[in-house]
This record gives sequence, structure tokens and C-alpha cells, in this order.
Amino acid sequence: MALIVHKYGGTSVGDPERIRNVARRVARFHGQGHQVVVVVSAMSGETNRLIALAKAVSNAPEPRELDVVVSTGEQVTIGLLCMALHAAGLKAKSYTGGQVKILTDSAHTKARILNIEEVPVRRDLDEGNIVVVAGFQGVDELGNITTLGRGGSDTTAVAMAAALRADECHIYTDVDGVYTTDPRIVPEARKLDAITFEEMLEMASLGSKVLQIRAVEFAGKYKVKLRVLSSFEDEGEGTLITVEDNENMEQPIISGIAFNRDEAKFTVLGVPDKPGIAYQILGPVADQNIDVDMIIQNTGHDGTTDFSFTVGRGDFDKTRQILDGVRQHIGARQIEGDDCMAKVSVVGVGMRSHPGVASRMFRTLAEEGINIKMISTSEIKISVVIDEKYLELAVRVLHQAFELERA
Amino acid sequence: MALIVHKYGGTSVGDPERIRNVARRVARFHGQGHQVVVVVSAMSGETNRLIALAKAVSNAPEPRELDVVVSTGEQVTIGLLCMALHAAGLKAKSYTGGQVKILTDSAHTKARILNIEEVPVRRDLDEGNIVVVAGFQGVDELGNITTLGRGGSDTTAVAMAAALRADECHIYTDVDGVYTTDPRIVPEARKLDAITFEEMLEMASLGSKVLQIRAVEFAGKYKVKLRVLSSFEDEGEGTLITVEDNENMEQPIISGIAFNRDEAKFTVLGVPDKPGIAYQILGPVADQNIDVDMIIQNTGHDGTTDFSFTVGRGDFDKTRQILDGVRQHIGARQIEGDDCMAKVSVVGVGMRSHPGVASRMFRTLAEEGINIKMISTSEIKISVVIDEKYLELAVRVLHQAFELERA
Repeated sequence: MALIVHKYGGTSVGDPERIRNVARRVARFHGQGHQVVVVVSAMSGETNRLIALAKAVSNAPEPRELDVVVSTGEQVTIGLLCMALHAAGLKAKSYTGGQVKILTDSAHTKARILNIEEVPVRRDLDEGNIVVVAGFQGVDELGNITTLGRGGSDTTAVAMAAALRADECHIYTDVDGVYTTDPRIVPEARKLDAITFEEMLEMASLGSKVLQIRAVEFAGKYKVKLRVLSSFEDEGEGTLITVEDNENMEQPIISGIAFNRDEAKFTVLGVPDKPGIAYQILGPVADQNIDVDMIIQNTGHDGTTDFSFTVGRGDFDKTRQILDGVRQHIGARQIEGDDCMAKVSVVGVGMRSHPGVASRMFRTLAEEGINIKMISTSEIKISVVIDEKYLELAVRVLHQAFELERA
Repeated sequence: MALIVHKYGGTSVGDPERIRNVARRVARFHGQGHQVVVVVSAMSGETNRLIALAKAVSNAPEPRELDVVVSTGEQVTIGLLCMALHAAGLKAKSYTGGQVKILTDSAHTKARILNIEEVPVRRDLDEGNIVVVAGFQGVDELGNITTLGRGGSDTTAVAMAAALRADECHIYTDVDGVYTTDPRIVPEARKLDAITFEEMLEMASLGSKVLQIRAVEFAGKYKVKLRVLSSFEDEGEGTLITVEDNENMEQPIISGIAFNRDEAKFTVLGVPDKPGIAYQILGPVADQNIDVDMIIQNTGHDGTTDFSFTVGRGDFDKTRQILDGVRQHIGARQIEGDDCMAKVSVVGVGMRSHPGVASRMFRTLAEEGINIKMISTSEIKISVVIDEKYLELAVRVLHQAFELERA
């Protein structure tokens, strides 16, 4: 008998019929003798509906009250799923975040989990109950309702698994696992049986949004065995996300090709090459809550340097305004911007021990006439920024060059 | 400076614009120096939507989980109203039933309030906050979410007013007060400035559904000054519901004409006149959760008696089946049923000290050729059952006969 945490996202519980399907899946695991804790999201569309209501009432909804409103989405799902489990003849009990209780800090709309009380849940499990927990939400020390921010249900699931020392944490989604790249672009893309936490982090942050990045970090930190599976298929083992196994000689060099379409790139030309210049450029950008992704500064010559960075495409105009404002102040010669960029990355723990990945990547792109605008590397990934029009081509040729279609 | 509890029903908070209107009204009271606690219902239609979802998942939703789902309706409203109050420049804080906390028994879907913690609410009020409380819901000793049943938000408001020893409890609805009868039937119907709790109870239970009956009982018991007002008009004092003032010599004889259209009547003829017969007839009816309203048993003759009672029209067929089943068992001669009945009642504490109300009522109906099928009296009301087709006529002539159009 194992203790397994299941997590179902909004699409998987999108209507009453799908909720009954989830109940059937949970019942099957329970029937195999496992104890099951189920973490659920709001029904798809519900969180957006609630946020729209809030925005219709106030331009700037108070974060505390926004959490009060938005957290009802998951509360509805836990009640409905328990009803479906009862209808299937099982004992089940629902818990809101506050009832568990999932203690968080007081950072409304983006709270962090501090502690989870495991005793009542464990007692319910031992009494034969399936425990259904509202994802995405918690309660602070004063009893105020908090939410973990978008996608936080994954984090709730991993945190519950960690607190209960569960044997596995299953994240059910609308895909049946993690792929070497997006199968819509490369039909030969292959489902991975396993991927390391670090690779998953790089894949997730680069646009393969199967799992919320915080949840993966959390799982890595607490050594929770995480598995991504499809909630629409009964068979399949999904993809296991594991602690890296250095002794596995069969490790592939790279695990996947990640990409992000909506990139915009800025280059500040002719910046005086002196300390503090990066802060003078990016400080005002960060102050406007614009996420800066890749940052590159070339070695200077003639006392000046060129400074490039990327932002999300939606922030292009705002960023340009800010840069126009600081240009004179920092004494830069010129600002160049391009909002039709895309980022492509090869990811894999194997590249640590296999030299030549970068050169194979660059050669492959060069052979197709794809110009690389920016390059950035980490231990286990190499990212390039290219013109967006070459994105699909780049992903396809790289997938082939690294033979990812082969198991 | 007074402490006032406001309660707004589903129609009054039915959309974002109406929620902002409520915020403006609350702000006005607060601006006059009053402390305000606001109790709100779910947005109109929301509770039905949630119940429909539950029924789509399970034919017989578990009551505990139904409460988890349905209670989200009011939770959304408290958050939205607080946002609107913030947007209007006021300090406001929302409380779910569990956060207040409103302690109830564990009778899910129809829980009763046992206690309310007033300290945190009072502290928030003293700090200048408007406190917004979710109606209709509470929490039992184990922390399970409970609901008070339909219309329970009125009860929450009165209970909050009692716990806080509020100066007044305002129930805002879509009518501007309690009328002598339904103005749609008698255009001359007059709004009452005041009505006693007892009269209100008789009016409410007889079909003038302005206020939930439990709330009125509660208000009478805890001496809460209750006022019914319109949430769509800025002027007007509404109707004050008071403890009876025996010293008021100007008290009208009767306060209003109540009625209920959907009545069905059964008469069991030739029942052996012996102890236990009422239970033998009504026991099986009550077992099927059919509400029996008026019950009349005439003095017997020849060792048999006639036994009559009324039920809601929707229960007519079911009740007939039950009676057909028990007829032989109890040795009754015959069952008569009629599902086109209506009940009309004159209500007023003045009739205690003014004889002749009954005879004036009966004479008025007789003059119009309206046959009375059943009569039932209490201390402060006289009800008759008549053919439904005469209902409007009866209400009009009685309203005139008792001069209710005059202040």
C-alpha cells in the first residue's frame, strides 16, 4: 500500500462529466489498496471569471479580498469531487487550504507555504477516506485566506506530498508526459520516461509549461517523486521527474528542445563601460515590474560597450519608453529594439560531460541560414535568440541533429 | 454614533454595478459617523448555479460537501463588496462565516447558530473598518463549513446584530417596506411604518415573504430592532419591526391581509372518532416530508368525525396517494381533495382587544358570495381557505372593509 498524491488541473475538472472521470480514476487507485490525497484546481475558466468580476468592481482590487474571491474556485471543485466520490461509493472528505491547514506567509496573491498540518489528513486517510484538498490556497497566521499565485495547485500537491512523505506525486494534465519538444512542431517528438528536476526546471522556464516551476523546485528540495501523466488516458506511465542519477551511463546528451515565441530584444549601443551601468539600465525596467530574461553585455572597446536583454513581447512598448528616458542619462549612443524574436534552447544534464553540444547546435542553425542574435549558456542548457520566423525550422533541425526521436 | 448591521440580498448585489451601489449606501452611513457591519447574500442566481453543478455531479449530494460548494457564493460577494468599499476610499475587511466565527451545530444545509465571536469584529470596527460578513454560513466545532439553509442571510444579520448589541438591523430588499397587502392586487395597499414581530411572523409565514421567518423569531427573541428597507431607493424609513407596544392606544385593529395561492385541501370523511387518529392520518404524510399547514378536526357525531388539512399544491398528488393507502387502514369512509384553494388571513395584534374582527371578515366575504371552506384562528390572525378564483376579490374587499388604505 502506497500513499499517492494526485493533482488535477482546471481542464481535468472542467465540467461535471470530467469530475466524475477523475473520481473513477481516483477510485481505481484506492481500489488497488493505495491511500490517495487529491489536490484540485478551479474548473477551467472559473479563476478568470472571478478575476473579471473583481476587475468589474474595482480597477485595483485589494489583494486580500482578491484572494477571498478567487479561492472560491478551488473550493467549489473539492466539494464537487467529493460528491462524485461518494456517488461512486467511496468515503471522501474535502479540505480548503484553511482547513488542512496550509499555513502560508501573508503575501496575498503570491503567498509561500510555510507549513502543513498533516495529522488530520493522515487520520482521515487511515479511516479509509480519500482526502480532497483545494490547491492554490492557504491561510496566514491570522486566519486570512491567501493564494499561491497562478498554477499554485502544483505547488500545493508537491507540498502535501512532502508533508505526508507520500510515495509519489502524480500531476495529471492534458498531456501524457514531458516531450523532447512540442509535438505540434516536431511530429517525431518523443515522450521522455524520465527527466531530472534540473532539466525540468530549464524546460519549464523556457516555455514547455507542463508544470509550475515552483512546484518542481519544491519537489527537488524535498525529494518528492513527481510524475506527469495525462488525465484523459487510463494507460501510460507519464514522465517521472527524478533526482539526477549520475551513475546512469545511458544518459542522453540532451533531453529536449525548449522554446519561447514571445520574445522582444533590446540593445543599448555605445554605453560607457563603467561599474553600475547594468543597474542604471535595468533598474528602471524592473521598477515597472517588467520581467527581464536574457541579459548579455559584451566586452567593451573604446571605453564603451553594448548591452542587450530580452523581455516578454507584451512589455516591448513600455520598455522602449523607459529606455528612451534613461538613454541620455546614461550617455548611450543608440537604442535598438526588435519585437519579433524567439528563443530556442537545448537542455540536458548530459552536456556537462559531453563537449561539443554548443558547436553542434550553432553549426546546425548555420547550415539552415538561421542567424543567431544572442547566446546564453548555463550548466545544462544553451539558449539562442533568433528571428521568430525561423523558430519552427530551428526546433525541427535541432531535434533531428540531437537524434531526439530515438529512445 | 450608532452601530448598524446592514443586510443585502442577492438582487441587491446581483452585479458589479449594484455592488458599487451598496458600497455607496454603506459609505453614506459610515460618513454619518456610524459603525457598519454588512451581511451579504450570494449574487442572485449564484446559489442556484452552484446547486445545479452539484446535482450534475451527484443525484444526492452529500450535505457536508454541498455546504462547501454553496457557501462560496457569499464568499465571492464579501470580497467584491470590500473591493468596492476600498475603491470608494474606505477601510473594509471581509469575513467568511468560519472567520467571524459564526459557530453552528453540524446540521449541514440547515444549521443553527450557537454562538458568534464578537471580539475581532468589534476590534476591526473600532479601527475604522467596515466589516463585511458572509451571510447564510457558519462553521461547526470541528471546523466543517455549514450553511443555515435558504434565506439564512437574514438570520446571520440578526444574529450579528444581537451579538454586537447593534442599535438597528437594516434588511435591504427589493421592496421599500412591509405593506398592508400585495400592492399588485390592491393598488391602495399602504406601507406600514411599524409592525410587531408577531404580526410579521404571521405575515411572513402566510406568504408575504419579505423576511425569513427564522430571522424574525431571532430578532424578537434577542430584542433586535429590525427595519426593512429598499436597496434601490435612497430615501424612506422602511418598516420597523418592533416588540409589541401595548400602551400604544392608536394601534390599528389589523395590520395587513396575507395570502397564499398554492394551497390544496384534503378532507377525510367518516373517520372513527378515537384517540390517535390525527397521527394515523398525518404521520405517513409527514414521513414523506410534506408540510401540512392548516389542520381542522370537527367535533364528531355518530362515533365518526371529519378531518381536514391543507398542503402545498405541489404535494397534492403525493398526498392523495398516501391517503388512499391509509384510508382502509383507518376505516375512513371517503377522501375528498381539491387543489385549487387559496388561503387569506387578516393579521393584527389589535384583534386581541377588539372583538368582532372575525364576524366582519366573514360578513365581508359572504356579501361577495365567497364560500369559506375552512377557518383557522390564532391570537392575532384569522385565516380562511377559499376557492382560488376568489382570491384577488377577497383580498381587495377585506383590505377595504378594514380600512387599511388609511394611515
